[in-house]
Amino acid sequence: MTGNDKLEGKKPEEISKDGSFKRQKNRFATPFGTKSGELPVVAGRYRLIWSPACPWAHRSVIVRKVLGLENVISLGTVSPMRPDIPRVDWEFSLDDQGTDPVLGIRYLSEIYISTDHNYSGRPTVPVVVDVTNKQAVNNDYFKLTNYLEREWAPFHKENAPDLYPTHLQTEIDALNDVIFHDINNGVYKCGFAASQDAYELAFDQLFARLDDLEDRLSKQRFLFGDFITDSDVRLYSTLIRFDAAYYSAFKTNRNLIREFKNLGEYVKDLYQTPGFGDTTDLEAIKKHYHLSITIIPNNNEKKILPKGPVLTSLDSPHSRHLISGKQEKFLK
Amino acid sequence: MTGNDKLEGKKPEEISKDGSFKRQKNRFATPFGTKSGELPVVAGRYRLIWSPACPWAHRSVIVRKVLGLENVISLGTVSPMRPDIPRVDWEFSLDDQGTDPVLGIRYLSEIYISTDHNYSGRPTVPVVVDVTNKQAVNNDYFKLTNYLEREWAPFHKENAPDLYPTHLQTEIDALNDVIFHDINNGVYKCGFAASQDAYELAFDQLFARLDDLEDRLSKQRFLFGDFITDSDVRLYSTLIRFDAAYYSAFKTNRNLIREFKNLGEYVKDLYQTPGFGDTTDLEAIKKHYHLSITIIPNNNEKKILPKGPVLTSLDSPHSRHLISGKQEKFLK
Repeated sequence: MTGNDKLEGKKPEEISKDGSFKRQKNRFATPFGTKSGELPVVAGRYRLIWSPACPWAHRSVIVRKVLGLENVISLGTVSPMRPDIPRVDWEFSLDDQGTDPVLGIRYLSEIYISTDHNYSGRPTVPVVVDVTNKQAVNNDYFKLTNYLEREWAPFHKENAPDLYPTHLQTEIDALNDVIFHDINNGVYKCGFAASQDAYELAFDQLFARLDDLEDRLSKQRFLFGDFITDSDVRLYSTLIRFDAAYYSAFKTNRNLIREFKNLGEYVKDLYQTPGFGDTTDLEAIKKHYHLSITIIPNNNEKKILPKGPVLTSLDSPHSRHLISGKQEKFLK
Repeated sequence: MTGNDKLEGKKPEEISKDGSFKRQKNRFATPFGTKSGELPVVAGRYRLIWSPACPWAHRSVIVRKVLGLENVISLGTVSPMRPDIPRVDWEFSLDDQGTDPVLGIRYLSEIYISTDHNYSGRPTVPVVVDVTNKQAVNNDYFKLTNYLEREWAPFHKENAPDLYPTHLQTEIDALNDVIFHDINNGVYKCGFAASQDAYELAFDQLFARLDDLEDRLSKQRFLFGDFITDSDVRLYSTLIRFDAAYYSAFKTNRNLIREFKNLGEYVKDLYQTPGFGDTTDLEAIKKHYHLSITIIPNNNEKKILPKGPVLTSLDSPHSRHLISGKQEKFLK
């Protein structure tokens, strides 16, 4: 592993031959449920490990709070600044003594390796740990919110919203898949691309999809109408990081989110909703993307040129001449 | 000189102990004029060397075109991609055979060193070269436009505008000084700062000054009223690079220029004026700042955190509830 690989926070095998980024698979994917072999749904048994910087972990923490599961599943927090020595990792450096008070570990990798002695991937958040034996039981970031919404329903607070209504699950799953590929992971495909072509492809897909959703949100308050669903949580977790980090650090610079009329207002709407803004740590987000994983995004070695911003507006009409108007421009 | 110093495109002595950037002095400052010891104002004798990437050079090229001096002073163009081997330099790699057709040189440093054998600074653009002896005679970027405007008046085209009217010169000089420190060089002070404090100081000065000018331009079309002056040329040359480059590469990310109501329109107004947009090469600007001098701006080693963007607007009122409004948010 070279010095750069260490700092990148990802393993070189996640870069394809064409320079595109292919995210590693999740290691611990046992579902929660009541069947044999499934993870029992029991209050006080699990600890969710997250970093406020990470969009994949943030979505689980939003759903945990919105559904009132704070006293049912405990929360451990790793620092947004990732150590790369002795390996790419997440660290409990925000805690007293630098260790998680429940699990007693300093690095997240300790749990991954004690659970799977042969684990060689990146240790990732979110990960659910069984506190009874300190083993990682689930790091399936894609399905985790759905487990919290469906299998953990017996523990939801009174009058908790239904983020994953049965009659909409197929549609939500389909939209989530699109949001994942083009937006949630799309920004990483821009930032981690190792070729100009791979970067531009990801960039175009990202903004085409944002344009679609901008249009969709012109007609309804949330993605499925008047009520927030799991899809809104997933879209929010990327949008709230966009202007603060991705625009520069990942070169997703066609437009800022705040420049989209509907998406910009939509983010504010969610940010001001309990469970969203109060779990959003913009300082941690900025630190992580600008300082902790700066090597890859800048792509000094790969010489990748940002595709944006769109500057064609320089040629669009203006009305500055109306301010003075004594003379047509200054030219005689 | 370390590898990083080479790539930075500037010498380490330009960084002060407090981490702030102090631009080197100009080497060749003999004025143009009619007195003994001054550079004679003669058509066909000089060649102006510029890079479309460089704001200090761009301003001279704008003025040269606006005043109709294209056939009086010739133009040589170096590539926006700076070589760092064998030294930090500018290169005529866009020309056939990679050499300037008039001066016959590949690197700009050749002129600097042949003129001053002990020259040890960065070779810079703009530089005016006397084609009769191929010696550098003036690289005083601060005063060069004023020479073109005043001493070169005998060669101005018919009905050329007066960019530097006698009765306004004191005021223009004073404003130019402010624009230089806080804006033209201010963006570099942000991008090249080697400490968080030096960066934040430069950032605050830059945006305070932009706010001032935003207000000034709410009342008049150009900085001194209804007519473009030398000050407008200087402000334009930084503003036109801002959204395309500085915002990300130099971390000047409180706001994009296009987000300022008046400054955004003012840039469009100038861009659409002959001499401005037609001398603006946005591709060259993007390449230079994002690919050619990426080491310093990213400050991986210095761990400088971007101060912007301002995200307090997330807490401002929105009207998304009016789109559906069947229920106050989704929470029961």
